[in-house]
Amino acid sequence: MPLPKRLIDGYVNFRSGRYASEAERYRKLGEGLQKPSIMMIACCDSRAAPETVFDAGPGEIFVVRNVANLVPPYTPDGGHHSTSAALEFAVLSLGVKHVVIMGHGRCGGIRAVAQPGSPLTDTDFIGRWMRPVRDVARVVPRPAAMTDSEHERHIERASIEHSLANLHTFPWIRMRENQREISLHGVWFDIALGELHVYDEDKAAWAPLEVEGR
Amino acid sequence: MPLPKRLIDGYVNFRSGRYASEAERYRKLGEGLQKPSIMMIACCDSRAAPETVFDAGPGEIFVVRNVANLVPPYTPDGGHHSTSAALEFAVLSLGVKHVVIMGHGRCGGIRAVAQPGSPLTDTDFIGRWMRPVRDVARVVPRPAAMTDSEHERHIERASIEHSLANLHTFPWIRMRENQREISLHGVWFDIALGELHVYDEDKAAWAPLEVEGR
Amino acid sequence: MPLPKRLIDGYVNFRSGRYASEAERYRKLGEGLQKPSIMMIACCDSRAAPETVFDAGPGEIFVVRNVANLVPPYTPDGGHHSTSAALEFAVLSLGVKHVVIMGHGRCGGIRAVAQPGSPLTDTDFIGRWMRPVRDVARVVPRPAAMTDSEHERHIERASIEHSLANLHTFPWIRMRENQREISLHGVWFDIALGELHVYDEDKAAWAPLEVEGR
Amino acid sequence: MPLPKRLIDGYVNFRSGRYASEAERYRKLGEGLQKPSIMMIACCDSRAAPETVFDAGPGEIFVVRNVANLVPPYTPDGGHHSTSAALEFAVLSLGVKHVVIMGHGRCGGIRAVAQPGSPLTDTDFIGRWMRPVRDVARVVPRPAAMTDSEHERHIERASIEHSLANLHTFPWIRMRENQREISLHGVWFDIALGELHVYDEDKAAWAPLEVEGR
Repeated sequence: MPLPKRLIDGYVNFRSGRYASEAERYRKLGEGLQKPSIMMIACCDSRAAPETVFDAGPGEIFVVRNVANLVPPYTPDGGHHSTSAALEFAVLSLGVKHVVIMGHGRCGGIRAVAQPGSPLTDTDFIGRWMRPVRDVARVVPRPAAMTDSEHERHIERASIEHSLANLHTFPWIRMRENQREISLHGVWFDIALGELHVYDEDKAAWAPLEVEGR
Repeated sequence: MPLPKRLIDGYVNFRSGRYASEAERYRKLGEGLQKPSIMMIACCDSRAAPETVFDAGPGEIFVVRNVANLVPPYTPDGGHHSTSAALEFAVLSLGVKHVVIMGHGRCGGIRAVAQPGSPLTDTDFIGRWMRPVRDVARVVPRPAAMTDSEHERHIERASIEHSLANLHTFPWIRMRENQREISLHGVWFDIALGELHVYDEDKAAWAPLEVEGR
Repeated sequence: MPLPKRLIDGYVNFRSGRYASEAERYRKLGEGLQKPSIMMIACCDSRAAPETVFDAGPGEIFVVRNVANLVPPYTPDGGHHSTSAALEFAVLSLGVKHVVIMGHGRCGGIRAVAQPGSPLTDTDFIGRWMRPVRDVARVVPRPAAMTDSEHERHIERASIEHSLANLHTFPWIRMRENQREISLHGVWFDIALGELHVYDEDKAAWAPLEVEGR
Repeated sequence: MPLPKRLIDGYVNFRSGRYASEAERYRKLGEGLQKPSIMMIACCDSRAAPETVFDAGPGEIFVVRNVANLVPPYTPDGGHHSTSAALEFAVLSLGVKHVVIMGHGRCGGIRAVAQPGSPLTDTDFIGRWMRPVRDVARVVPRPAAMTDSEHERHIERASIEHSLANLHTFPWIRMRENQREISLHGVWFDIALGELHVYDEDKAAWAPLEVEGR
C-alpha cells in the first residue's frame, strides 16, 4: 500500500518550499551529527508539535514525544526506558543546555485518566504508562465548582510539575544543575488560544508567557 | 531561569505568523480531542521533524519520537513501555489508519552502535535502549569496499525493517492489517539531500519517493 | 541464649532513670496511637541516633533507619518498599509536618561505594541497595587535591540531595508541599565534632547549623 | 523553610548536655568506622526508640527501623530490599553478634491490619508492606472473650515470631547460628508500662524480662 496521499502531497510542498529555500542548510546539517542546545519532551498529540509552536528549523530542538509528555522516575534497572535513554543521549552525548517539558490542553491521555471509567486503563500499555498520572491526579484537589475542563487542566499541569521533579532525580542532570550547566523548564500550550504558559518552579506558579506583539 | 531566548523568539513568530493566520483552525481543534489518521514513529533528531518534512499542520499526524525511531517487540509484561503505549493509544483509541516509521541519515544513535568502542554502550539507558539495533547491526553484511557512511545507512534501514516486523507482532495491529483497516510504512529521510526513501515490504526494497516537481 | 548483658543493663538504667521520671508520660502515650509531627529518615549507624542528636523524648519523632539514609524513587510497582511504606504511613496516616533526611560522616555504606573495589558491591542486597549512591558518586567531581575523606563527605551530602529530589516525586508529598502543609529538610551530622550541617535547597548549599551557646 | 524549632532546641540541648560530656568519645568514634556488636530491627514508632529503652550511647547498637519492625523473607531477586541490605551489612561487614527484633504495643501499623476496613490497605506501599502481617494475623486465634487490644498484642507478637523465622532463612545468618557466632532475639515493649517482654524461641513463649530493681 502506498504512503497516504496527504504525506506525499506534504513532501512535495516541503521540496518546493522549505527545502528549496534551505537546501544549503540541510546539506551542511547532513554532513555531520546534530548539535542542538535544547531538548524538548512533548506529547504525541497531533495539535502540539514543538517545531510549530516554537517556529523551529532543522537542527534546533532534540524532541522526545510520548503520550502525555511524561518523564518517568530515574530507575536504572536494566529496563528498556525510552525517555530516560533519550535524556541520557541528549545530556551526556549532545550536551544540551535546556530540557523543556511541554504539555498542552485537551490531552486525550490525561482525559482518559481523569475519567475513572475509561476503558484504556485496563489495556496492556496505556494503563501502565499513565499510572504516574493517575497517582498525580488523585492528589489534585477538585472543589465542587470546578468544571471537568478546569480539572483536566490542573492535572495536565500537575503532571508536568511531577515530571520536572523526576528530572531532578537523574544524577547527571542534578550535577549539571548544581553547576549551572543545564536548566529545566515546564511549559503548557493552550491549543484553542495558541497560548503558552510557563511554570515558575521557585514560586510553584503558572503564568502565560508575556511577549511583545501578542 | 527564563526560557531560552530562541524559544521565546520562535513563539513570537508563531503568534504573529502561523497562529495569526490559522486562529480559527486552532480554536476548533482545541474544542475537542484530536482525530489524526496518521501515526508516525520518528527519531528525536533535531534535523528530521516529521511535521517539517511532510509539511503537516496541527491535527494531522500523531507523532512518537524516540532515539533511533525504534518499535520494541510486543511485550505485555506490566512494564512502562512508552512506544507501545503510544501505539496502543493511536490504534485502539484514535483509530489511526497508517503507522509510519521514519528513519533518517547520520543518526547519532545508530552511529554509536555501529562504532563498537562507543562509550554510550556502557551507560545505564542508551546502551540498553539501542540493544535491538546492535543485534540488527551484527547481521548487516559489510563488504570490504563499503564506507562507514554506507554501512550506517544500511543499519539505519535494517533497523526500520526490524521495527516494521515488530509492529506486525502487536495482536491488535495484525488483526487490523488482516482486515485492511490499517497499513504500515517505513520511510528514511536523507537530511543532506532532503530526499525521502520508501520501503516496499513486499519487494523488501528501498527506493526514493518519486514525485512530480522534484 | 539470653539477651546480651549490655541490653539488660541498659534496660535496668531506663527503668530506674528515664522511665521512673516519665512514667506518667509513657502511660498516656501508651493509651492511644502516636501523633508525632516530625519524620526522620536516618542511617542505621550506631553513632548517629536521631533521638540522641536532637535530644528527643518518646512520641516526638517517627524514625525510619536504613543503610545510608536513602529515599528510593517513587515506584508504585507493587514491590515491597520499606521506606516508601513508612513515608506513606507518616504522611497520609500520621500527617507529619516535616520530613528530615539525616546523613552523617564516616558512613560505612558510602565508603563501600566510594571505594570501587569494595567486596560488598557484589553481594545480594547491599550492592543493589547502594546502587543509587554509586550513580550519585559517579557525578561528584573529585579534584586532584581532594582527600578520600573529603570525597566521601561530598558523596554523603550529594546522596542526601538526591534523596530530597526523590522525596519531591511522591505525589502526596508534592501536593502538600504546594499547599505549604509539609516541609522537607536535609541535615548531615559530623560525628567527630558533634556538629550538625543543614542543606539549603534554594541555594543548593550546606552550612553548619548556627545556634546560640554552641 | 528552617528546621522545626523542636529539633533546633533539641540540638542545643545535645551540644550543651550529652555532647559536652562525651566529646572525647564522639571524637574517637568519628575517626574510623563503627564497630557495634548488636543489631536491632525496630519500629518507626516515635514512642519506642531502642536507644531510649536500652539506654544506649553512640556506637552501641546498629538500628534498622521500618513500619512494624518486619524482616521480610530471604529473596535475592535483584530487588531493592532495605532491611535485607541492612542485615547483610551488619552481619557480613560489621560482624554483629546479636540481632534483636523489637516490637511494641499499640502499633499503628498492626492496628491498620487488624481492622479489616482500614483505608491504608488500599494504598500503594503500606498495603503491600504489611501484607505479611495480614497473613500472620489471619492465623492468630481470637477467642470470643478477647478484646481488640489483646488481639492486637497477639498479632504484634506473632509477627515478631514470624520475622525471627524469616531471619533463620538468610543463609549467612543460619551458618553463623550453627557455628554459635550469632544469636537472634525477639523483644516486645509495653509503652504504657515501660515494660519489656522477651520471646523464648525454644519454649515458644513470651515473658516479662525480670530484672533486679524493677
